[in-house]
Amino acid sequence: MIYDLLIIGAGPAGLIASIYASRYKLNNLVLGKTLGGELALASKVENYPGIISLSGLALAEQIAKQVFLLGGKILYREVVQLLKSPEGFLAVVSPTEKYQGKVVIVATGSERRRLNIPGEKELIGKGVSYCTTCDAPFYKGKRVAVIGGADAAVTGAIHTAEFASLVYLIYRGQQLRAEPIWLEEIEKLIKADKIKVIYQTNLKEILSQAQVAKLKAETDSKASAQLVGGVKLDNPYEGSEILPLDGVFIEIGGVPGTSLVQPLGVVLDERGYVKVNEQMETNISGLFCAGDMVDKTVMKQAITAMASGAIAAASAYKHLKGQIAPPIRGI
Amino acid sequence: MIYDLLIIGAGPAGLIASIYASRYKLNNLVLGKTLGGELALASKVENYPGIISLSGLALAEQIAKQVFLLGGKILYREVVQLLKSPEGFLAVVSPTEKYQGKVVIVATGSERRRLNIPGEKELIGKGVSYCTTCDAPFYKGKRVAVIGGADAAVTGAIHTAEFASLVYLIYRGQQLRAEPIWLEEIEKLIKADKIKVIYQTNLKEILSQAQVAKLKAETDSKASAQLVGGVKLDNPYEGSEILPLDGVFIEIGGVPGTSLVQPLGVVLDERGYVKVNEQMETNISGLFCAGDMVDKTVMKQAITAMASGAIAAASAYKHLKGQIAPPIRGI
Repeated sequence: MIYDLLIIGAGPAGLIASIYASRYKLNNLVLGKTLGGELALASKVENYPGIISLSGLALAEQIAKQVFLLGGKILYREVVQLLKSPEGFLAVVSPTEKYQGKVVIVATGSERRRLNIPGEKELIGKGVSYCTTCDAPFYKGKRVAVIGGADAAVTGAIHTAEFASLVYLIYRGQQLRAEPIWLEEIEKLIKADKIKVIYQTNLKEILSQAQVAKLKAETDSKASAQLVGGVKLDNPYEGSEILPLDGVFIEIGGVPGTSLVQPLGVVLDERGYVKVNEQMETNISGLFCAGDMVDKTVMKQAITAMASGAIAAASAYKHLKGQIAPPIRGI
Repeated sequence: MIYDLLIIGAGPAGLIASIYASRYKLNNLVLGKTLGGELALASKVENYPGIISLSGLALAEQIAKQVFLLGGKILYREVVQLLKSPEGFLAVVSPTEKYQGKVVIVATGSERRRLNIPGEKELIGKGVSYCTTCDAPFYKGKRVAVIGGADAAVTGAIHTAEFASLVYLIYRGQQLRAEPIWLEEIEKLIKADKIKVIYQTNLKEILSQAQVAKLKAETDSKASAQLVGGVKLDNPYEGSEILPLDGVFIEIGGVPGTSLVQPLGVVLDERGYVKVNEQMETNISGLFCAGDMVDKTVMKQAITAMASGAIAAASAYKHLKGQIAPPIRGI
């Protein structure tokens, strides 16, 4: 079958695109790796209008329920390739699983930025994580580092300090750049010796337990080469360039997730975001983008991503029907 | 006292601006005529992400609660004048009630468009209404007309048909322009003789009961000159240019509510919307606009208004602190 509209990405932008598309009576399918995108990583959301306090995942689940109630479908699949086809677009999940749509909205958000240092890739999931909200609870009573100095790192350190015995916040800059409400919070935890901030310092390498033991010339038969044991700093802390740790959280932001649309020849801006006009149209006819991956989303918030998803759905309708989507209004 | 930020308008854009401003630790005050703006007029909202179904007013109340919890204040006052002052801006409610702010976000939405025909102004609140959602329940068992043919008029007619014995939908165009989901719904009500659509017809005048009686050369001692009795059409319906009615709902859209900002020299676009850049900055330093009144809001939806309100708050922060607002993230 051919859908009117394929939506790739099940984060805030994609889900809202489905809600609006269903209201426009467009036969639509959401394909996403996981539910909720970045929103699902927030363990507590208190600035989403209308919801006093809820986890990001619970909010995403609530929205997914709404998608179903309005007639939309969500399949948790990773689209590995997006192709132009005579009918419109073809989303390839595997050689045997493909979905066709007349038009497509891509809302694949952003991918976590990596440090690209030795040991990082090798130890992912073995002490290296890009999501404090997801993995902090595994470090109860342990010593961990959070890398970064902006909001994600600061809130990540605060969250991790609920579990870890000590959190090092390692930042290359001189001053944390976080929301004032979080700066107040971290100040308290620094005073309580739960968090230590190491400024003007970069990681040179992430080390396994075995590497740390070797560098310290210790003999530890239980030291694993498969688990994080510490990091090497470019600015020695308390006299040592080796900081022994049980986990490293890398929270240095994201890069736009444009790998699916780039092969189609979509124009990006100089920072790597997809160029769209105010209707969320890309330079490719029938291909719309929304959410954190587009240059028009000046604030990376659920609410702004959703707004762009709603607009993209209206534009998809216009493209399919040849007329402006009617305003949606409650009754 | 001088607030960091005054927010004028207590609709979705203004309320969210307060939520974000409070998270940025800006001392902020919301001044609005009533709570919820256009959102409050929707008796049922089913496309707001995260809320399956709720009245617009209940949703606005929920958001107002959040404003309070985060430290924001709302005062239900009509600002009649906005002035530049040495401290920033002065919002005048009355000669004795004025509020000062270093910067201001104006989010005064839109005002209902009028027909500007004889009898309209005289009979407002006496059978002439601009809000089916507010006033339809008063017309139980009566005959009313809804004027317009876009979504507001169509949903308004559907809603009014729940109460009225017969609803005329009077439209100057040839084809209704509403969301497909509503067109299906109205079709059923037309078949059930609850709604009659009169196409290609304009109202020439709104008449009182006394005027209708006189024009029909009837003697009716109870006919009031203070209540709607009918309308005069430019395209006679069933042979008569007079259509007797008990109420007239005018649902022909809105015009941007720019009366407060125009005297400050704010630049408008050719349609009357305030020109803002992507940061919601107007041409006046320290004055930001958001929501339905700005040219950047391509879709008049709560979610898009909210997104622009959040962005305006971040821009207000930047203006006050001389630095980019940190990204807000849940924890």
